[in-house]
Amino acid sequence: MTQKLRRKNKQRRIPRATLSPGSAPGSLTTHEGAAQTQCYLTATKADGIFETECNVSEDLGQYLNKWPLVWINIEGLADTEKLMELGRVFNLHPLALEDVVNTTQRPKTEHYEGTIFIVLRMVKEYEATINSEQICIFLGKDFVLTLQEETGDCLDPVRKRIRVSEPRIRFSRPAYLMYSLVDAIIDHYFPVLERLGDRIEDLEERIVRSLDDKLLEDIYQVRRDLLKLRRHLWPTREAVDRLYRDPTPLIDDETRIYLRDCYDHCVQLLDLVESYRDISSALMESYRSQVSLNMNEVMKVLTIIATLFIPVTFIAGIYGMNFDASVSPWNMPELRWFFGYLFAWGLMLITGGAFLYYFWKKGWIGGRKRSTGRASDAA
Amino acid sequence: MTQKLRRKNKQRRIPRATLSPGSAPGSLTTHEGAAQTQCYLTATKADGIFETECNVSEDLGQYLNKWPLVWINIEGLADTEKLMELGRVFNLHPLALEDVVNTTQRPKTEHYEGTIFIVLRMVKEYEATINSEQICIFLGKDFVLTLQEETGDCLDPVRKRIRVSEPRIRFSRPAYLMYSLVDAIIDHYFPVLERLGDRIEDLEERIVRSLDDKLLEDIYQVRRDLLKLRRHLWPTREAVDRLYRDPTPLIDDETRIYLRDCYDHCVQLLDLVESYRDISSALMESYRSQVSLNMNEVMKVLTIIATLFIPVTFIAGIYGMNFDASVSPWNMPELRWFFGYLFAWGLMLITGGAFLYYFWKKGWIGGRKRSTGRASDAA
Amino acid sequence: MTQKLRRKNKQRRIPRATLSPGSAPGSLTTHEGAAQTQCYLTATKADGIFETECNVSEDLGQYLNKWPLVWINIEGLADTEKLMELGRVFNLHPLALEDVVNTTQRPKTEHYEGTIFIVLRMVKEYEATINSEQICIFLGKDFVLTLQEETGDCLDPVRKRIRVSEPRIRFSRPAYLMYSLVDAIIDHYFPVLERLGDRIEDLEERIVRSLDDKLLEDIYQVRRDLLKLRRHLWPTREAVDRLYRDPTPLIDDETRIYLRDCYDHCVQLLDLVESYRDISSALMESYRSQVSLNMNEVMKVLTIIATLFIPVTFIAGIYGMNFDASVSPWNMPELRWFFGYLFAWGLMLITGGAFLYYFWKKGWIGGRKRSTGRASDAA
Amino acid sequence: MTQKLRRKNKQRRIPRATLSPGSAPGSLTTHEGAAQTQCYLTATKADGIFETECNVSEDLGQYLNKWPLVWINIEGLADTEKLMELGRVFNLHPLALEDVVNTTQRPKTEHYEGTIFIVLRMVKEYEATINSEQICIFLGKDFVLTLQEETGDCLDPVRKRIRVSEPRIRFSRPAYLMYSLVDAIIDHYFPVLERLGDRIEDLEERIVRSLDDKLLEDIYQVRRDLLKLRRHLWPTREAVDRLYRDPTPLIDDETRIYLRDCYDHCVQLLDLVESYRDISSALMESYRSQVSLNMNEVMKVLTIIATLFIPVTFIAGIYGMNFDASVSPWNMPELRWFFGYLFAWGLMLITGGAFLYYFWKKGWIGGRKRSTGRASDAA
Amino acid sequence: MTQKLRRKNKQRRIPRATLSPGSAPGSLTTHEGAAQTQCYLTATKADGIFETECNVSEDLGQYLNKWPLVWINIEGLADTEKLMELGRVFNLHPLALEDVVNTTQRPKTEHYEGTIFIVLRMVKEYEATINSEQICIFLGKDFVLTLQEETGDCLDPVRKRIRVSEPRIRFSRPAYLMYSLVDAIIDHYFPVLERLGDRIEDLEERIVRSLDDKLLEDIYQVRRDLLKLRRHLWPTREAVDRLYRDPTPLIDDETRIYLRDCYDHCVQLLDLVESYRDISSALMESYRSQVSLNMNEVMKVLTIIATLFIPVTFIAGIYGMNFDASVSPWNMPELRWFFGYLFAWGLMLITGGAFLYYFWKKGWIGGRKRSTGRASDAA
Repeated sequence: MTQKLRRKNKQRRIPRATLSPGSAPGSLTTHEGAAQTQCYLTATKADGIFETECNVSEDLGQYLNKWPLVWINIEGLADTEKLMELGRVFNLHPLALEDVVNTTQRPKTEHYEGTIFIVLRMVKEYEATINSEQICIFLGKDFVLTLQEETGDCLDPVRKRIRVSEPRIRFSRPAYLMYSLVDAIIDHYFPVLERLGDRIEDLEERIVRSLDDKLLEDIYQVRRDLLKLRRHLWPTREAVDRLYRDPTPLIDDETRIYLRDCYDHCVQLLDLVESYRDISSALMESYRSQVSLNMNEVMKVLTIIATLFIPVTFIAGIYGMNFDASVSPWNMPELRWFFGYLFAWGLMLITGGAFLYYFWKKGWIGGRKRSTGRASDAA
Repeated sequence: MTQKLRRKNKQRRIPRATLSPGSAPGSLTTHEGAAQTQCYLTATKADGIFETECNVSEDLGQYLNKWPLVWINIEGLADTEKLMELGRVFNLHPLALEDVVNTTQRPKTEHYEGTIFIVLRMVKEYEATINSEQICIFLGKDFVLTLQEETGDCLDPVRKRIRVSEPRIRFSRPAYLMYSLVDAIIDHYFPVLERLGDRIEDLEERIVRSLDDKLLEDIYQVRRDLLKLRRHLWPTREAVDRLYRDPTPLIDDETRIYLRDCYDHCVQLLDLVESYRDISSALMESYRSQVSLNMNEVMKVLTIIATLFIPVTFIAGIYGMNFDASVSPWNMPELRWFFGYLFAWGLMLITGGAFLYYFWKKGWIGGRKRSTGRASDAA
Repeated sequence: MTQKLRRKNKQRRIPRATLSPGSAPGSLTTHEGAAQTQCYLTATKADGIFETECNVSEDLGQYLNKWPLVWINIEGLADTEKLMELGRVFNLHPLALEDVVNTTQRPKTEHYEGTIFIVLRMVKEYEATINSEQICIFLGKDFVLTLQEETGDCLDPVRKRIRVSEPRIRFSRPAYLMYSLVDAIIDHYFPVLERLGDRIEDLEERIVRSLDDKLLEDIYQVRRDLLKLRRHLWPTREAVDRLYRDPTPLIDDETRIYLRDCYDHCVQLLDLVESYRDISSALMESYRSQVSLNMNEVMKVLTIIATLFIPVTFIAGIYGMNFDASVSPWNMPELRWFFGYLFAWGLMLITGGAFLYYFWKKGWIGGRKRSTGRASDAA
Repeated sequence: MTQKLRRKNKQRRIPRATLSPGSAPGSLTTHEGAAQTQCYLTATKADGIFETECNVSEDLGQYLNKWPLVWINIEGLADTEKLMELGRVFNLHPLALEDVVNTTQRPKTEHYEGTIFIVLRMVKEYEATINSEQICIFLGKDFVLTLQEETGDCLDPVRKRIRVSEPRIRFSRPAYLMYSLVDAIIDHYFPVLERLGDRIEDLEERIVRSLDDKLLEDIYQVRRDLLKLRRHLWPTREAVDRLYRDPTPLIDDETRIYLRDCYDHCVQLLDLVESYRDISSALMESYRSQVSLNMNEVMKVLTIIATLFIPVTFIAGIYGMNFDASVSPWNMPELRWFFGYLFAWGLMLITGGAFLYYFWKKGWIGGRKRSTGRASDAA
Repeated sequence: MTQKLRRKNKQRRIPRATLSPGSAPGSLTTHEGAAQTQCYLTATKADGIFETECNVSEDLGQYLNKWPLVWINIEGLADTEKLMELGRVFNLHPLALEDVVNTTQRPKTEHYEGTIFIVLRMVKEYEATINSEQICIFLGKDFVLTLQEETGDCLDPVRKRIRVSEPRIRFSRPAYLMYSLVDAIIDHYFPVLERLGDRIEDLEERIVRSLDDKLLEDIYQVRRDLLKLRRHLWPTREAVDRLYRDPTPLIDDETRIYLRDCYDHCVQLLDLVESYRDISSALMESYRSQVSLNMNEVMKVLTIIATLFIPVTFIAGIYGMNFDASVSPWNMPELRWFFGYLFAWGLMLITGGAFLYYFWKKGWIGGRKRSTGRASDAA
């Protein structure tokens, strides 16, 4: 049932940030439906690596302070007991822990005594829409602590690089591991944007082809996804910028150069998102002008038909008049002509034909094709 | 009667800020209809807490300078005498006191000698619209003074935490109490935004269902509420930022970390408000396109009907002509056919049917459903 | 005649700033129609106050350097001789004097050696539109010099406070008098905005009631007034900010706190102006949608009438056909029915009624009221 | 022919900036059609002034270093030889000289060793459109060098002031002459804006009067002129700001105060341009709504006429039916009434009249005047 | 086949930035279809120049550290081996090398120990659209290293100037060569913008002439090109600004003056691009209003025709009524008039003529020409 509630929360169209006002700062109340907490530990030193699924309270003491770098990865935030235990072990600030549990934070970097606290959003595989989960990173003198909202992440490439003998990560300080994680999280936005780009190209094709029912809804969906990405990436950029710039002994100069590169990637992503937003605006406009063109065409064709028949109906009306031919030869002599009826038909055909020719000449009927500017042209 | 005037003031749709120009700075003239002034005192020390409804002039001397932290809470600003008495007791600057009484201030933080003066707006339960009252906080070396426009506030959780044995608040300096109050006030915006979000979702449903009468008015109401919230929250963000950053001995470093968290909440709130504003813009647009779609549909159906009957009326006109059949066999022989009348009917039915078929083929009549993009998709 | 020219200048709809290019800097050429120059002197000391209408060249020497504070108020700038005399007496910079005479300056604060030069705009009573005049304030070590474009100002409350025994002003330094003047000028914007707010509320009512002739013009007028106020207030805010911040021995710390309050009032005024601008934009939009709704209604009603009569005219056309009933019993037997004519009328009534019912069912005719969202809702 | 090319260049509607890419920096290639180079020298000292048309290479040596201030004014940039000669004499940087020749520079101030280099644009008399030429000013220790694109300028007032015995300019340092030139150039924008204001007022009148053919084109022209002015004035403001602020021994403190005044004028000009841009936007909008109102009126009148005749045509159709009156007394008895025909006319007149009354009642026909909001109201 | 893939990549309408997330930082994976790597070396000293196509690993050692300036130009990035070899020789940072290979970088300047790394985009000849390739420049103490995405560039003028005896380049430090390259790349934008300007002028003509099929698509294309240029130029401006400002011993003061000139060119280019964007917006608007004017004209002409015939059809209907003339002299006496039929025709002609006159008088038919404001007027 908590699972259900959580899914409902996910389906909400309008973003929410819930907080029980007035609760003491630093109090940990996980939202209903949080995933079960699991803990993984990776300890590395120059000549070895040790990986285990661990129990918070007991195992940590064995590795901490004994290995140069310990990476603890927590997945699922349901067990507040364990989180508070972690807080005690790593001396984490209660406000930071509160932010970990409250999973609607904006990405940010905060400095506490002895630790740096980073909040990021990790996008998932792009399916119908963009989903993301919050990931928090604590960087300490000899540990990196990551806390994820759910199981499953995009950090496998980093794990692989740690396992494969890549000396840089193993022997370097925790800052480099932190950078690797941040970099992996940010770079994971690229394939998601790639797929969004495919989708926009697909929408372009569909507008040109025909205005089917779901089109507008799909455009709106893409716009919503882009706004979501933008809302994630702007503060991410700031957070990485602060990581790169703020003076702190926890991050060495070499890692800073790598973080600058990371910052560059953020800017590139934001550039792309802005381009896509321009394109999606053009898509909307293109859709609207297509709809209005269709409407205009309806009105035009109908009005032309009406206009065609009005003059000929008038001619028919003329010869329906009852002027008394017996009184005067001037009174409707056509009625008594041998080919009078045919003459009337001829008159009507010529009139109608003249109008048709005039309309055609003016280009109001017939072949003028309208060109359909693709939306991507505008961005 | 003052009650009435005050209500009238509340109902004003257009925000006003009234000030009698030319009055001496620091003069206290409360607006008509201000609530009766009541005074509550809470004194705390390491091993105790004392709460009382007090009389300004007499009781204050008993507690001030004797307890490490005294919190005086004033509700209602009608009694300027008491306020001036307070000003003398706590050595408040006349300009600050003037701002207290003048309840249309923007949220702000100001530093006076020995005190910090904070103005915030406290939102009330969200009913038909958003209402708020001004709350002023003076932070001194050993006191916190809060002045509210009306009785009733959102500070009960803080009071509860003071009463329940939570050592942090009782023994810490006034700065922490001030933070707790600011935090409670800001966090109280969350449930209000939550309800506004519900309302927007409701409006979305209504646009899709049908364009009832109050819809546009309700959308405008939501937009107005969002603008109000934004007008409150922007300067609040600044005020909290200054509290957090400005160097002052009255605020200790630990409290600053909590204020940074408070600032984060402000930013989150502003983010939400901006998202909602995007959504409400999309709602407006959605409403307008729905109205215009309806209008277009009217015009289309009517024009189709007219167009259908024009050609067949023409045919009826043809056979209403009076060509003299006795003069020539070419003159309207149809009139003398055995099935002439039925032939005419047939002609008319075929013509009308052909037009209907053409319209249906083009998709101008019949089942093409238009998709209704929900507004929330765009944000 | 100069009076006439001046009035003409006032009526100009488009703002102008005239300057004879190439004239030597610091040359004083008052614009035609400037008011006659009159000079008022107020000298104050701890135990007395002396007020007189004075003659520039002679009387000033008597008071200057002998009283701690001399306030000279000049009304009307026609007499350039006197102004240059003043410049010599008070050692004013020629460029500042040029700005005094050239009455289209932006509000600003400038520091010259020994004096601070402040330019502000003083709004007048709000009648049909917003009028303002330029007021310049020179602040020296022991004098305050104000130069107004015309007679009549909003400084009477300050004069009254000087006369009434309010020790602060009399004995304090000129800075406080300067502040009192600036404060009075800025606070005088509040009642003007108040009346503008009344006017906007009135316009709202009128849009809902009916679209009378002057409505659009009045909305434009309000927008123009708001733009004017904004153009005055933005640089005023800057000017006061510089007064408050720039380090100068002429302004003491206590007065700075008052100037900060003054700055706050500017920001509040700008906030209000922006709110009103939002509302007036919504008014425009509301007006436009009302006009378009009216137009749509016209088209709809007319089209419905036309559509109603087209099918019944077709029926009348049918029975106007001349098929020869003598040839065949199938040829228009209705014409020979006993109740044929009534049958035709019945047919026509039923057809018309069916269409009316369809239109009513679809909601295209009859009672659907459109809600008129008030403009103030959007701000 | 070069004259022709040049004129063609002038007539280009779209701004261009041409540069032969890849050419060595500092190479002087004047654009085709540059005016013939002429050189004027003005040398001033405390007790005299000497003016001559001079030859670059020979005459300069006589005056430079011998008179305290030498002003060389070059008109026309065709002779690159002379320009390079000048460069050698005054020790000008090749890049600055290149900018002199390349007459599409943005206004700017640049500091080179020993000289300040200022680029400005000098507007000409406002005729059909705004034309401007580039003027470059080099300020040295004892010289001012001005280089104009064409003959004829707006510096005559400065020349006059030099000739007339105005001691300030003659004896002061070159900085003051430089200031006088910059001031004259900037103040020359005022009459141009004045005339543009007249033109906008004129356009306003024309929109209200009638929508003649050239109206839209003229509005666009005004907008283009305003954009041009804005493009000139923004960087001019920056250039003067840098002159005023950048520390350099070439500009004394007294002149800086004058330059601050100059900066003020730039800001005033930009304010005016922005106001005019608002007005011209309102003009565009006003024009568009006028066009759409006219179109709506056409449609309305035509539809009313059509609607009026449709019901009466129906009545005529009724009495054109051929029901056999001999069969039944119920079959069209009106046809045999004594006043049947008049009855029919009466019916038609009453119907038509009823419709007219309905339309009039609803306000769709007749006297409702539409108010035409003037564009200047909106700014 | 790689050639094909690459072309496909080029044709993509929507910009992409691809990056394999999770890959180790500094790993070199060139995108498929990268051009073959070729290496050119130019070594210069005071009295000579040596140019050769070289082999990375062997030849470099001969010249490096022996000639004061060595310029290595790499074209094509397919051979990652060579690139890594280069990295080792010149001690380049792996992240910089990664950026070289990843050819969707934003232009930027980065400082590494001992080298400055510049990324720019080099526009190609403007054909149907704007194409560009990435060019990276490494500036070291005694070398300049350029890496281009493809063969062919716009640097020939620089090569020519090196060959021709221009002492400045040869003997000066690498900074000057770097500047020459940056300058050549930026100045190459000018002819591209020139051609874009021609194209916009051409589009203007076409809109006025007739709305042919490809028009909208071409306008979109121009807008897309402008957005592309803007996306290239904004970061280029920043990159050059950093080159000019950042303190580094690699760039001498004289070269900085040249870089300032370069920066000026960037600003000029951006100014032009913004002007063109304004014009293209006006083009879009102009196109839309043209389309809507055409539609309105259709509706107007058709409605006029319909309206003309409706009253005359009514008259024909009148005389088609069957009132029994034998019953009364008042029943349709016109039918028995001698010129009755001609009278009816006269009536109809007069009615039609009156309507035509009315329409003509109102200006709804006949010669009112609409003026077509050119888009370039608006910018």
